[in-house]
This record gives sequence, structure tokens and C-alpha cells, in this order.
Amino acid sequence: MSRAPEVGHGLEALFAPRSIAIVGASDDVTKIGGRPLQFLRRYGFGGAIYPVNRKAAEVQSLRAYPDVAALPDAPELAVIAVPPESVPQAVRDCAARGVKAAVVLSAGFSEMGEAGAQLQAEIGRIARDTGLRVVGPNCLGAIGVPAKSIATFSVALESSFPEAGPVAVVSQSGNLGSYTLRLASERGLGISRLLTTGNECDVDIADAIASAAADPGTRVILCCMETCRDGAKLRRAMALARAAGKPLVVLKVGVSEAGSAAAASHTGALAGSDAVFDAVLREGGALRVPSIEQLLDVGHALAVLGEGRLPAGRRIAVLTASGGFGVLLADAASAQGLTLPRLSEATQQRILQAVAFAAPANPVDMTAQVSSRPELLAQVLDAVAADEACDTLLLQSANAFHVSRLRDVFLAALTQMRARHPQRLIVLCARAPAEVRRQLDALGIPAIEGIDAACATVAALATLGTQSSQPSEVEETSRTPLAPEAFATEASAKAVLAAAGLPVLREVVATTRDEAVAAARAIGFPVVLKIVSPDIAHKTEVGGVVVGVRSEGQLVDAHDTMLARVADKAPQARIAGVLVAQMAPAGCELILGTKTDPVFGPMVMVGLGGIHAEIWKDVALRPAPVDAAAAEAMLRSLQSFPLLDGARGRPKADVAAAAEAIAALSRFAARHADDVAEIDINPLVVLDAGQGAYALDALLVPTSKTHKDVHP
Amino acid sequence: MSRAPEVGHGLEALFAPRSIAIVGASDDVTKIGGRPLQFLRRYGFGGAIYPVNRKAAEVQSLRAYPDVAALPDAPELAVIAVPPESVPQAVRDCAARGVKAAVVLSAGFSEMGEAGAQLQAEIGRIARDTGLRVVGPNCLGAIGVPAKSIATFSVALESSFPEAGPVAVVSQSGNLGSYTLRLASERGLGISRLLTTGNECDVDIADAIASAAADPGTRVILCCMETCRDGAKLRRAMALARAAGKPLVVLKVGVSEAGSAAAASHTGALAGSDAVFDAVLREGGALRVPSIEQLLDVGHALAVLGEGRLPAGRRIAVLTASGGFGVLLADAASAQGLTLPRLSEATQQRILQAVAFAAPANPVDMTAQVSSRPELLAQVLDAVAADEACDTLLLQSANAFHVSRLRDVFLAALTQMRARHPQRLIVLCARAPAEVRRQLDALGIPAIEGIDAACATVAALATLGTQSSQPSEVEETSRTPLAPEAFATEASAKAVLAAAGLPVLREVVATTRDEAVAAARAIGFPVVLKIVSPDIAHKTEVGGVVVGVRSEGQLVDAHDTMLARVADKAPQARIAGVLVAQMAPAGCELILGTKTDPVFGPMVMVGLGGIHAEIWKDVALRPAPVDAAAAEAMLRSLQSFPLLDGARGRPKADVAAAAEAIAALSRFAARHADDVAEIDINPLVVLDAGQGAYALDALLVPTSKTHKDVHP
Repeated sequence: MSRAPEVGHGLEALFAPRSIAIVGASDDVTKIGGRPLQFLRRYGFGGAIYPVNRKAAEVQSLRAYPDVAALPDAPELAVIAVPPESVPQAVRDCAARGVKAAVVLSAGFSEMGEAGAQLQAEIGRIARDTGLRVVGPNCLGAIGVPAKSIATFSVALESSFPEAGPVAVVSQSGNLGSYTLRLASERGLGISRLLTTGNECDVDIADAIASAAADPGTRVILCCMETCRDGAKLRRAMALARAAGKPLVVLKVGVSEAGSAAAASHTGALAGSDAVFDAVLREGGALRVPSIEQLLDVGHALAVLGEGRLPAGRRIAVLTASGGFGVLLADAASAQGLTLPRLSEATQQRILQAVAFAAPANPVDMTAQVSSRPELLAQVLDAVAADEACDTLLLQSANAFHVSRLRDVFLAALTQMRARHPQRLIVLCARAPAEVRRQLDALGIPAIEGIDAACATVAALATLGTQSSQPSEVEETSRTPLAPEAFATEASAKAVLAAAGLPVLREVVATTRDEAVAAARAIGFPVVLKIVSPDIAHKTEVGGVVVGVRSEGQLVDAHDTMLARVADKAPQARIAGVLVAQMAPAGCELILGTKTDPVFGPMVMVGLGGIHAEIWKDVALRPAPVDAAAAEAMLRSLQSFPLLDGARGRPKADVAAAAEAIAALSRFAARHADDVAEIDINPLVVLDAGQGAYALDALLVPTSKTHKDVHP
Repeated sequence: MSRAPEVGHGLEALFAPRSIAIVGASDDVTKIGGRPLQFLRRYGFGGAIYPVNRKAAEVQSLRAYPDVAALPDAPELAVIAVPPESVPQAVRDCAARGVKAAVVLSAGFSEMGEAGAQLQAEIGRIARDTGLRVVGPNCLGAIGVPAKSIATFSVALESSFPEAGPVAVVSQSGNLGSYTLRLASERGLGISRLLTTGNECDVDIADAIASAAADPGTRVILCCMETCRDGAKLRRAMALARAAGKPLVVLKVGVSEAGSAAAASHTGALAGSDAVFDAVLREGGALRVPSIEQLLDVGHALAVLGEGRLPAGRRIAVLTASGGFGVLLADAASAQGLTLPRLSEATQQRILQAVAFAAPANPVDMTAQVSSRPELLAQVLDAVAADEACDTLLLQSANAFHVSRLRDVFLAALTQMRARHPQRLIVLCARAPAEVRRQLDALGIPAIEGIDAACATVAALATLGTQSSQPSEVEETSRTPLAPEAFATEASAKAVLAAAGLPVLREVVATTRDEAVAAARAIGFPVVLKIVSPDIAHKTEVGGVVVGVRSEGQLVDAHDTMLARVADKAPQARIAGVLVAQMAPAGCELILGTKTDPVFGPMVMVGLGGIHAEIWKDVALRPAPVDAAAAEAMLRSLQSFPLLDGARGRPKADVAAAAEAIAALSRFAARHADDVAEIDINPLVVLDAGQGAYALDALLVPTSKTHKDVHP
């Protein structure tokens, strides 16, 4: 079996083939073998079209061929629309004939049960063995817009073919991809390509992203994603998009909890698979949007703004011709985390010179006067555009483009403004008829309909504009095996973690009462005693923990009592000794953990202990490893961070030490991801600034065991 | 001065006058005195129209009169569009002539400074003295749609006049009201009236709501609100709308914090004025929406569904022809707090009989098959509609009404479904051209565009449908004066609160060491000692609290040490004695408080203590008084309620006792709202179920003092 091709490789033939064969071509244009042929002819594909049909000599007035072998040329692209059981042979024929890429539109595969899944696996094997790239099965296929290459039966092409332009649409779901394409076209956005990947026997969504990233005609990638089968590949594809400077906007559907059910540890319960997805997308520089509407809005804005024109911050100036709308926009913008800084005195003076009764601070109420005199609107726009206080101008009008008198005023003023400030970012909150939107788009001014939608779009642009332009490092941490003894007890887990740089307090495992006394003397009172047993995970439940032991006398008592209590409550447990540990000073408690996600690999999670994580789900999650700076950013992203930062007159906690501990744990998790399924540090106690942070308890869960096996 | 008329009284003349005078009528149709006249004639107002113009004998081809006195009849409605300084006389003339209502369109009043505010106050006085109802000034006026009464210069009328129907639009902002009207009309919704209240010298938004509630032609009230000047009046208006069974949907703009800055107590800081607004609207049965788009969506649904047809719960069935959209809708619905129960086995069988490859559970993926065979869609709809598992059906289609073949399929199936299930609630998530929307509206099936929007609309309907149908009791609690001594100390505050039913632990103020010993003996050890002084609010800061006093010896020590410490740290403070109090058992700590809002009166607030309130703003707020059931509902609405309810293996707390305490405090706050600005109970300790709840500390802030004065 040959090695799988690099992500996105070999997909060019899907979008600009010199020739296309339709295997299973039909005269019936309601069938999936009839529609692509009809579309190719209707919209004027320039290359050769070869209908393949075992019985007919002619299909839709074109000469047909009985099989792929009989074709006069090797087609670059094959569209396969035959019954599922005939698909493997058709794919094999294509590979043998030298076809570069095949799109399997037929359904009836893994979505239909075991037999279908086997058929699908067979197609995948053929693809890997032969190097033929196969899209689908059970997909809506591909469109290459500039070349008018059509390998789809999408209803989106029923009435018209998209205009060519910078927006690529990639989707696992055919319907969502097709719908996105149609809505984008209706807005007048130019499209570079559509690729829907369906059941993904070979080409997957990562390939689709990577291929769009490499396409010179694509500037913006809109992606609808349901799942991910190969996390590392997706991360490589995101890195390619980021390196190419092409924004990747993702609508992730199916906030599934399937992945999180397996692991019942504290960490696992909080960081369900959607949270993992979210962390991976953010880490990879993709912008996740919550709705298909916002996918379109942001795509529209990115397509219109032009390359690299993104806001450097979240500061906006709001301009309206009505105080009421100004308040509404200020509310909506604030809800999106945008700020409305006060404009400079000079700017306010310029605004007032133009419109004496304006409210000039921000939001700017230009009053209805600007509706009648275009030069006033131009003057206000010029004044605000010249002010460096804001990153983006947000101009709202309820009527501007639907009343012909106002339309001319606004278009004239905006044209003038664009001439004077060619790089200024300005977004309209307005409805506009198609012909006006085209003019606005040409000025690089997107018109977004709806107040919340416009503010969400500006916020999304700011998020893209302020994120690091560094491609995320998809580093291959070298995996190191971990000795099985490490998993035995709290003490053994702490020992390997301490060796990896996770700070722990002094502790000794004593196997006799005398050893315990000696250990406590060496450590210094007060101490904590804990039972050490590979069979006891929840020590407190069997009376296996005594804190605040202050003297030798207390220690002797506590030691013997504890052993007796444990023997009573857990008579079967093997006892390895008693852990004598330095007693932790009071501090702020974090819960810290890692979990190896089956798709995305090791993730690290941190949150404040107790109800913060439990009730409020206030945790930060990232792919591991992270460095100390990233770990500190995780802490600062917590809503409860003020509790570490001196809120309510508390002393500041040692955030730097906590960050180092998080980083050390994340490196350990990445290095041992093959052996370690989860790590639970509960708590990591963070002392006052300068005093350090210490893991007080640790649990390592090996990959081969579920958490349940460990806690019987 | 006569008594102000009851809320909403006397506004009929604004919407269906027999005759209208335009004071300041103009030939220039771009002026505010020209436009209403032009509109009245263009749209065919049936009554008499009297232009009033001091100079012209004719305006817009109608005979004009020099003043109101010269009119042949007393017009029922006068539109006033003269310069601001002439408005008071014009209003006086109208009152003298027997005009019933006047709309002052002119601007230049309180929005323009002190002189304008005085002019406006003068108009308000004339209105109150004469009984003439005055709308405005600085407003966009009123439209009565069935009578084609037009007292506005709104651009919304520039191209067409709204169709008559059940939706009333009321707004303080003229622009927001006018915009809402235009969008509603564009959706094909029938409008009963528009009323914009502007500066509200007389008629305010409460009048507008109450008048719409009394209007037989109105079934739904859409309201844009910026502020409220009279809380009690607004609550009466909301009660009228609720009693009339007319849903009131409110877009509140300007999430202002102006009101909360005054009070720096814990309670005040958390319960800003927007939170108060929110609580009052919820209490009054109004539905608050976050955006103007949702105002329209919900208005559309309410107008179309017909009287009283609201879902009885939040359970929905989602139907799509695509798995991808099903997932997207399930995500969006869950985010709105809707649930997707599994359909019954029988229903699922019926679905599978119709469409063999459907996913029948919920979301139902009907597959693309239903697109070609209307009888299949009808069968699936019939099966789901017959299932009692769901309150609302949500049917989504990306293309149904834009592809003529599909349109007929869907309309036929929906018509059949409606015939078989006349009362079934069904909402479409689909775009539809105007003519199709009209057919759908006639079937009582609103089509909402956008997935999030459709789910938010269904959720809003469910919120309206599940709220108590009881008109909120705007009870006039009789106000009782409170002796000034109550405010002196913690002990005096607790004494009056205990008398009012707030449970406190046993405590005695001792003025000598011997009295303290005797008190402790009577109460039983352990006890707590606290300094009693009208000059010390923060007792711990001066060492004025000692907890855990377990014996007479300890008590004598603690008593003397504390007095010495306080004398040292607060030498000026008058010492009234030492409070000897029963020591509270451990429990869950709540913070409980009341605050008398300047607009809405006494409010009661409760939250879990510490960081729950501080970091998470997890508090519940309601107008006071509340009964114990409402108080318990407040507790249950807290996100941290599980901590009271036995989460993490805790014992359940005495929620019933806590609720009784909240109710008692709220009654006290309502009774003494004239004297008490704020009450802080921090903490109210809630013991295990059956053990009670006790106020451990209490602070009463008198109305005449700010919190600062109390804590010098």
C-alpha cells in the first residue's frame, strides 16, 4: 500500500480539468447521472465531455461510450453516478485509465450500514493504492467556477451559475455547502469553487481546505464541518491556509458529546469534544462562527474588503442619522466585545462644523440633515475616517439605499470618502438592492443587513485581524514510553511528573511507623498522611487521608488509626505504605488536567477549583504542549482570573509559577500521549506571588484503561 | 391642577379622529408641516382636513384657516408643526377649541437644553390643566391605519401606506418606531397603529401600550423603549395588556448604568438599572427581545398564529430534508433552551412507512424524497402533528419556496396538514417570496428566515406560552413609617426585621461585661461577640467581631480585648454595647438585599454569597414584594442553585426557609419603601433542610442617606 498523499494534494483536476467523463450518464435530467451533464452543457464547460453509459450510444445528444476504457482520451475528472455496488469497479476503471480525480455522487455507503461501509472502504483502498483522488461517496461533488467544471447535481445551479471570484466553499454536508454557495451567489459574491466531501473515503475536509489555500483564485475559505476524522491533517491544512494569508471561516455543526462520554474524569466531563474542536480551531487561526448567516456575512465582508485589510483592534466608530439607532448599535457592539472610544476633540469639532446639532462623541448622531446634503455626510465621514481613535467605521442607515434621493447622497459621500481614505475600513449596516450592493462592493464597503449581524461581522473581522499571524506550530512531539509503575499510585505519578518539572511538595513513602516518624522529622511538622495503594483511588472515602499532623505523638496515633480504618473499609486493597507529605500552605486552588483526544491528540485544561469549574464551566483548553506564555494566557482567559489577580483584597497569586506548572504538565502529556489517556491534578495550589505552585494530588490514567477501571 | 388621567385614557382621537387640523400646514412637502397633509390626501383620509396657516388662504389646494379658533368645527386631532416657541400657544388654542388630542411634531425642546426643557414643561402643564392629550414634542407622531389617520412625517409612508391588521407599533424613538413599521409592512403584516412618543411631555410609552391594549383592532403590541419615567404607570399598562391577552414584545435599548452609580452597596452594584428593567418587564409578562430583527420575527409569528395560539412548552419537532440542516437546527434550538424529544415509536413507524430512508427520531430527516412527492411530505407532517410529544413543529427548507416545483409540493402538503390539524403550531424556517408568504400567513404558518432566527422565535413563543397568564399584581402596598432608631445599628436593624418575620439567631445587646456573661449563659455557648456602635459599619475592620467564644473565661477575655481594640482603632465611635449572639451552624451562605429603584420602587435581590455574586453576577431580581413561591422560583433560577440542592454530595439546604426569609424581607422593603433605600443581609445562612435560615448580619440604609454616609 502506498503512502497517503500530502493534505490537499492532487485535487486540481476537480476544479479545472481538461476533460470530464460522466460514468452513468443519463438522459433523465432529474437523475444524478443526468444533471451534471445538463449543467456542463448549459453553462458551457470548455473541455471535452464524455458520457459513459453501457447501453446508449448517445446521451443528451452527445456521443456516449460503453466504459471508461473506450474513451478516446483519458479524462482528467470522472463523475461517478452508478449504483453503489458498481462503484468500486468504476473507480478501478478510472484509475486504470489514468483519470486524476473522481467524484462519487452515488449514495448507499457507510450511511446505510455495514455492507455499505465495506463497499466504501474498498473505494478508499483503491484510491490509496492507485493515487486516484476520490471525492465522496454520498456527496454533492465539486464545482470549479472559472473553468465551469461541474461535478455536482446541486440544486444551486438550477437557475444560474455563480460568478467567478475569491470565495471557496468547502463542506462535508452537501446540502449545507450547496446552500452556502447559493446564498453567497445571491449576495453577488464571486465564487472560486465548491467542494463537498460527503462520506470522505479519501478526500476529506482537510484536503478541501488545503487545496483552496493553494488555489491562486481563492482568497477566503468558507467551511461547513460536521466532524473530523484526522486531527493532525486538519491542523496541517489550517496551517497552510494561515500561511497563505487566507481567512478560514468555519461553521461547525453537531455540538456532539459522543467523544466525552468515554472519559468520566473531571477533566473529561468539562472538556467535551466540541470544546476540543473549538480549541483546535482557535489554535489553528480559523474563525468559528455560530450560524450559517454569520458565515455568509463574514465571507461577504472578507471578499469585499480585499486582501489583508483587517482591523487592528476592536475599536469602532458608529455613525447614524438617528439617536435611537445609535443606542441600539452601541448596545449590540458592546455585546460583541467592541468598544466605542470617544472621538478626539478635533474630530468632534469638525463634525459639529458640518452638522451643528450632531452628537459628535461616538456613537455619532449625524441627524437627518445628512440625508438631504451629501457634502455634510462626506464631511462627517472624512472627519471620522481621519481620526485614529477607531479601527473600523460602522455606518448605519435604515433607508439610505431604498429611497432614491438618499441613495445618491450616500453613494456620492462614500465614493468621495473612499477616494480620500483608500485603506480605511468601513462596514455598512444597511439593506441594499443588488445593483447598489455591487457598487458598494466595488468600493470595498460591505453592506451587512441587521444590526446584530453587522456588529457580529465587525467583531469577527477584528478577531481575525488581531490574532497572531504566526502559523500555528503543528509540532511533532517525540513520543516517549512511560514505565507502567508510574501509573501505580499517587506517589509514583507525582514522582514522574516531578521529574518532568511539575512542582510537588516534599513527600516520602513510609512502609513502617518508624519510617513515617523519621520522614516527618526530615520534612518538618505539620505533615499530611495519605494511604498508598494501587487499589484505592478515592483515599478520603476510606479514611485514607489525615491532614494537620503537628507532632510525633499525633503522627503515631494518626498512622495507626488510619491503617486500621483502611483495613476495615477496604480489606482487599494492597497497601504499599503511608505517604508523609509536607502540609501545603493556604493558596488558590486550580484544577489542572490533560486528556488525549482520540482525534486531536493531547489537550491541556485548567480552571479554578471547586464550583468555578463545576457550575460555571470556567475552564481554558488548548492542544498540548503549550509554553509558559500560552499557559499564562489560558489562566488570564478565565472569567475567574481576578481571584488569582488580587480581587477582593486578596494577595496576588503566583501566576507565573502556575503557568510553568501547566506548561510542564502539557509537555509531559504530549511526550507520553501514547501511554497516558488522562492526567488529573486536583488541586494545583497556587501560593502568593513569588511563593510557587504545587501539585497536591495527581492521577495518571493509562491509555489502555478507561477511568472506570482505575476507580473500581 | 387636575389629576392626571388614567394610563392610556383619551388617546382614541389620535387614531380615528373625525377631523384633523394641521397647525403650521405648509405647501412644501419636505417640511414637517407639509408631509402629513400630503400623506392624508394621498392615502385618502375620510374625515375633514383643516390646514391652519397664519398667512396662506390655501395650502396644498385645501382651504386654510388663520388659526384654530377660526375653524368651522372643533377638530378631534391637531398636528402641530410650528416653531418651538409658538407651540405652547398653539396647544392652548387647541385646548380652548375643544381638540381632543394634539401631536407636536416640532423639535427644539428638552433635547436642546434648559430653555427647551422649560418650553416643554409648559406644554405638559397645559395638557394636565386642560385634559388635552399631547403627544411629543420632538416625536414622529401617530398613524391610525384603519381610519387612515396620519399625524406623522415618517419616511415609512413615502412609498406606500400599511395594510390594516393586528400589529400595533409603539416607540419612544421616532426612527425606531418608523423603521419597525416599515419592516413589518414589508413582511406583509397588517398594522393597527403607530404611536411614537418622543420627549413625552404628557403621553408616554405606558399610555401608548395601554391604549393599544384597549384597541379592539390590535392583537399584538411591538414596543421600542429607551427609558421609563413612571414605573408604576408602566406596570399598570403592562397589566392591562396582559389582562387583554395581547402579547407585548419589548425591545429595550440603552443598557444604561446611570441609575446604579448612585448606590455603591453590594446589592446596588449587581443590580444595575437594566437588570431592574429586565425584572420589571418579566414580572409584567412582557417579552423582552434583544434585537429589532427579533422584534419583527416574533411580531410576525404572533400576528400570523392567531389569538391565543401559543405553545404550552419548549418541546419541538424539527423536520428537514437534509441531515446537515437537522444538526444545525438541533444545535440552534438547544442554544435557545428548546428540547427535541424523541418521537413515539408509532410516529417513527408512520414516518418510515412514508419515507423508508428517513431518520425518524427527531430531528426528522425526511430526505430529498419529500421534495418530489407531496403526499410523502403530507404523511410525515401528519404523523408528527398527531404526536403529542412536541409543542411546536419546526419545518425547515432551504429551497422550498424559491423553486416552483418544490413550492407547490410544500404548499399542498401544508394546506392538507392545516386542514387535518387546525390548531397545531407550526413554524417554518424558510425564505419565501411575498406572494407565498401571504398564502402561508393565511394558513397560520409563519415563515421565519434564518436558522437562529427561527429557533429564537419559537423559543420566544414558548416563553410567552408558558408564563403565568395571571395579570401581575401591581399591588399598592401600604407604606408605613419606620422609627429612625431602626437604622442605628446591626442590632436595631435585626430587631425590626425579626419583627417583620426575617429569622435571626438569638442575640442580646450587653452594656456591661456581666450582662454579656449572663446573655451568653442564657443563649448557650459557643457565642459570637460583635461591637454595637452607630458609627461603625465595618465591624471586622476595627476588630469588632470575635467568633467561637466557647466559655465564660474566653468570653470575659474576648469582651475586654475587643473593647480595647475598638477604642484604639475607632476612638471617636460611640459604643452602645456588645452584641452577644448565638453562633450559627455551618450552612450555605446567600446574600440577600433590597433596593428602592427611583423609577420602579422596591426590588429584592438574592444570590449565593462570595464569588457567585461577585464574579458570575448570578443573582435573581424581582420587584418587591414577592411571596414565598416567587422567592423560591428566584432561588431556583440561580445557576448556582444546585449548590443548595444537594450537588456534589452536599446535604440539601432549607430552601423553603430561605424563600420565607426572602419573602419577609421583600414585604418589609415594600412597606417601608419611603424610608428604606437599601437593605443588605450578608449573609443569610441556610442550614440543612428542616433546620431553617438565619440572617447573620443586616444593614438598613435610610432613604435620605447614601450608602457612603452610613459607612464613613
